[in-house]
Amino acid sequence: MANPRFFDNSGPLSLTDLADIAKAEIHRGDAQGSFQDVQPLQKATAHDISFLENKLYVKAYETSKAGACLIEPAFIERAPNTMALLVTDEPYRAYARVAQAFYPSSCFPKVNMMSIHKNADIDPSARIGNNCTIDSGVRIEANVEIGSGCSIGANTTLKQGVSIGESCHIGENTTVQFATIGNGCVLHAGVRIGQDGFGFAPGTEHLKVPQLGGVRIGDNVDIGANTCIDRGAGPDTVIGDGTKIDNLVQIGHNVEIGAGCLLAAMSGVSGSTKVGNYVMIGGAASIAGHLTIGNGAKIAGRSGVMRDIASGETVAGYPAFPAKEYWRQVAALKRLTKSNKGA
Amino acid sequence: MANPRFFDNSGPLSLTDLADIAKAEIHRGDAQGSFQDVQPLQKATAHDISFLENKLYVKAYETSKAGACLIEPAFIERAPNTMALLVTDEPYRAYARVAQAFYPSSCFPKVNMMSIHKNADIDPSARIGNNCTIDSGVRIEANVEIGSGCSIGANTTLKQGVSIGESCHIGENTTVQFATIGNGCVLHAGVRIGQDGFGFAPGTEHLKVPQLGGVRIGDNVDIGANTCIDRGAGPDTVIGDGTKIDNLVQIGHNVEIGAGCLLAAMSGVSGSTKVGNYVMIGGAASIAGHLTIGNGAKIAGRSGVMRDIASGETVAGYPAFPAKEYWRQVAALKRLTKSNKGA
Amino acid sequence: MANPRFFDNSGPLSLTDLADIAKAEIHRGDAQGSFQDVQPLQKATAHDISFLENKLYVKAYETSKAGACLIEPAFIERAPNTMALLVTDEPYRAYARVAQAFYPSSCFPKVNMMSIHKNADIDPSARIGNNCTIDSGVRIEANVEIGSGCSIGANTTLKQGVSIGESCHIGENTTVQFATIGNGCVLHAGVRIGQDGFGFAPGTEHLKVPQLGGVRIGDNVDIGANTCIDRGAGPDTVIGDGTKIDNLVQIGHNVEIGAGCLLAAMSGVSGSTKVGNYVMIGGAASIAGHLTIGNGAKIAGRSGVMRDIASGETVAGYPAFPAKEYWRQVAALKRLTKSNKGA
Repeated sequence: MANPRFFDNSGPLSLTDLADIAKAEIHRGDAQGSFQDVQPLQKATAHDISFLENKLYVKAYETSKAGACLIEPAFIERAPNTMALLVTDEPYRAYARVAQAFYPSSCFPKVNMMSIHKNADIDPSARIGNNCTIDSGVRIEANVEIGSGCSIGANTTLKQGVSIGESCHIGENTTVQFATIGNGCVLHAGVRIGQDGFGFAPGTEHLKVPQLGGVRIGDNVDIGANTCIDRGAGPDTVIGDGTKIDNLVQIGHNVEIGAGCLLAAMSGVSGSTKVGNYVMIGGAASIAGHLTIGNGAKIAGRSGVMRDIASGETVAGYPAFPAKEYWRQVAALKRLTKSNKGA
Repeated sequence: MANPRFFDNSGPLSLTDLADIAKAEIHRGDAQGSFQDVQPLQKATAHDISFLENKLYVKAYETSKAGACLIEPAFIERAPNTMALLVTDEPYRAYARVAQAFYPSSCFPKVNMMSIHKNADIDPSARIGNNCTIDSGVRIEANVEIGSGCSIGANTTLKQGVSIGESCHIGENTTVQFATIGNGCVLHAGVRIGQDGFGFAPGTEHLKVPQLGGVRIGDNVDIGANTCIDRGAGPDTVIGDGTKIDNLVQIGHNVEIGAGCLLAAMSGVSGSTKVGNYVMIGGAASIAGHLTIGNGAKIAGRSGVMRDIASGETVAGYPAFPAKEYWRQVAALKRLTKSNKGA
Repeated sequence: MANPRFFDNSGPLSLTDLADIAKAEIHRGDAQGSFQDVQPLQKATAHDISFLENKLYVKAYETSKAGACLIEPAFIERAPNTMALLVTDEPYRAYARVAQAFYPSSCFPKVNMMSIHKNADIDPSARIGNNCTIDSGVRIEANVEIGSGCSIGANTTLKQGVSIGESCHIGENTTVQFATIGNGCVLHAGVRIGQDGFGFAPGTEHLKVPQLGGVRIGDNVDIGANTCIDRGAGPDTVIGDGTKIDNLVQIGHNVEIGAGCLLAAMSGVSGSTKVGNYVMIGGAASIAGHLTIGNGAKIAGRSGVMRDIASGETVAGYPAFPAKEYWRQVAALKRLTKSNKGA
C-alpha cells in the first residue's frame, strides 16, 4: 500500500464500485467482493486490484494473486481461476480511475472549505471564489480573479489582473502574471508564467522590446515544476485544453500549443512556433522558432527540430529527420567507422 | 491594443513626439497627428504606428492601413499614400523605443515612491536607497545594499552582504547571495544567483571544495526566469554589461561572460569558460568547461561546443563545427543513407 | 583572500593544525609556522597554503611563493626551498579540507542555536530537533520531522509528513513533499522534491495516474538549485548516499540512483531508469527511461543514452556509443565531407 505517512487510502471498494469507477464490465467475480488497494500484478494479493495493458506482463498476469484485474477481452482465457475480471478496452485508463478512487488526495484534493491564511497578502480588489485554500505567504495583487475550489500554495504570487478558473491547484513558490488560466489546471511548484519573452532589438546596447501579449492557458492543463512560459510579444502565448507539460520545460513568447499535447521534461519550444493538437514531444527535445508542427506529430526525446513537421510525422535526431531515416543515419555512420577502423 | 487588464496605454502621442522618441525623421505626415498604439503592419489602423524591418513583410507594408510607419529610407517609395513616414536606419530599435513609450509599465516601471511591505523581514544593518518597493515576504539579510529606485518581488531573499545598484528589478521567489549587481538590471522570478559551484574533490566520499568567490554582474543585465548562476570557486563568476540571459540557463562557477552577449533559453556554460563580448548563444546550446569563446562568435541552438571558438566564428552541431561544415556533414550523412538504402 | 564582505576567515592556522586537518605529513617546515589563507600557486604568498594536483601546474609550483603546499611525494624534489611541504596521496582532497577549515561558514555553518522566525508557519504536530534555524516565511506542515542542527531557508515549504535527518541545509524557496531525506544533505534554493511524476493514461482526455510513491534521499546528498526530483508512481524515487547533483537537473519518477554519483548541471534521468554507484553524468546529458546504467559508468556531457550501459563503460554522443567509437564517428563524418567538398 502507498505509504500511509503521505497517502490516505479511501478503500475498501466493492467490485461493483470498481466496475463503475473503471467504466468496465464485471466478467467474473463476486459483485460485493471487497478491495483495499491497487498493486502491480507481481505484488498484488487477494484484496488488491491490478491491471494488464502491456503484453510483456502476460506471464505475471497468469501467475498473479490479485483478487481482481482490469483486462482487455482478449486476456479473459488466460486469467488465474481465482481472479475477478473487469473487462474494458482501455485497462490503463481504467486503472488510473480506480487508483484515483483509492487515493483521491494524491491528485489534488477537491477543496471543500474556505481557508485563507492570515499571512496571505491579498489586494482588496481581488475576487476569490468559494471554497478556496490560500496558504501562507501568498501574494494576490489587484483585480486578480480566482474561481471556486482552488488551492494556492505557500509563497506564490498572482500578479495584477491574473484570472484563474475553477478547481485549479497552484503549487508553492509559483509566479503567474499577465495570464488567464482555465478550469481544472495544475501548476506545480516553481512554475513561472507570463514573464517577459526574450525580445531585444540588438545593437551596441540591446533594447528591450516591450512584451505586450499575455498567456492564455486552457482547461485541464498540467504544468510541471520549474517550467517557464513566457508571455507574448504582441499576440498571446497559448496552451490548449488538456495539454500536459512536465518539469523544467521552456515555452517561448507567441508559441501556440494545441489541445492534448504531451511535453516531457526539459523540452523547449522557441518563440512563435505553432504546435498542433495531440503532439508528443520527448524529453530534452527542442523546436526552433517560427515553425509549424502538425497535429499528432511525435518528436523523439533529445531531437532538435529545425523545420516544419507534417501532421502525424515521427521525427528524431539533430537536426530532426523522419525517425526511420535518423536510425538509418545512425547505422550508416556506425558502418562507416567499422570500415575505417585503424585508418 | 494590448489587453487593458494587464497594460496601461500612455498614448496618445503626436507624430513629433514619436519621431523624437524613435530617433527618426519625419519624412511625411502631420506633425501634430495623434497616435494611440503600436500594431503590426497587418493589424494597424489609422491611429497606430507600425514598423518594417524584415523584407518578408514588404507586401504587408504596401497594403497596410497603419497611420504611420518606421522604415528605412529605401522603402519610402513603396509606402501607401496615406501613411506618415518616420525614417531611420534601425526601424526595429525605433519600434522598441516607441512601444516602451506607449507602454512604460510593461518594462518594469520606474519606482517613484518608497514602499516597504510590513511583512518584509529586513535586517537593520541593510541600507536601502530612496524610492524602493519591497514586497511581502522579502528577506534582506545583514549588510545588504540596495540602490535607489529598485523593486524587490515577493518572497525573494537577498543574503548577507549582497549589493544591488540603482533601478534594478528583482522578481518574485528569487535568491541572491555572494553577489554584486550593477545598475539597471532585471532578474526575473525564480533566478538563483551565487549558490555553490559544483566543486567536489572526488573520492569514496566526495568532499565539498569551498566556493570562495562571488558573482559580479554588470549594468543593464537581464536574467531570465529560473536561471542559475553559480558563484566562483576562487575567482568570481562575471557577467558583463548589457548581457541578456533567457530562462532556465545555467552558468557554472568561474565563468566570465563579456558585454552585450545574448544567451537564449536552456543554454549552459560550464565552469571556468571565458566568453567574449557580443557572443550569441542559441537555445539549448552548451559550452564545455575551461574554453575560450571569442568576441562576436555565434553558437547555433543545440550546439555542443567542446573546443575554443575564434572571434566572429559561427558554429553548430555536437560537437560543434564551423556552421557550413556542420551542414555539409548533415548533407553527407543523408546522401550516405540514400545510397545504402535497402542494404 | 576571499571577499570579507561574504566570507569570514577563521585563520591563522599553524602548519601542525593544517597537517592534521589535511591528513597530510609535514615533510619540511616550521610546525608552529602560521598561515592565514588558501591561494592558488600563482597568487599565494608566504602566509598562504596552496596545493599541486594537476601536472600542468608544475611550473607554477616551482616558482610559487606559497608559504606551504600540499603535494604528492613525487614532487618533493621540485619544491622551492622556502616552501613548507605537506605530503599526501590526495592533495586536492587535502586542499578541500584545509579550505573548509579556513572558511567553515562557506559550507553551510553548523547550526549551534535554535532560531525560529516569528513569521514561520509551523504546524503544531511538526517535530523539530535541537539547534535548528528556520527562516522567515517557511511553512512546515503536519507531522513533518526535522533532525537537530538543520537550517531551513526563507519561504521554503516542507509538506505533510516530510522527514529530514540531522545537519541538513535546505535553501530558500524550496519545496519538499512525499519525501524522506537523510543526514547531512544540502538542498540549494529552488529545489523541487516529490511533486507528481509525469504519469498520464493517454487518450482524448489524458487521465492522471496517481503517483503513489515517495522520494527517498540518503545521507550527504547535495542537490543543486532549481533541480527537480519527482516522486515515484508506485515504488519510490531513490537517491543514494553521497550522490551530488548539480543545478537544473531532472530526475523522473521511479528512478533509482546509487551512491556516490555525480550529475552535472542540466542532465536528466527519465522514469524508472536505474543508475548504479559512482556513475558520472556530464552536463546536459540525458538518459532515456527504463534503462540500467552500471556502476562506475561515465556518460559524457550532452550524451543521449538510449540503451543499457555496462559497469565501467564510458559513452558519448546521441545516441550514445562507447566514447572511442563516438570520436571515430565524428572523425569519419569529417573525412566524408572533406572528400565530398564541392560535390
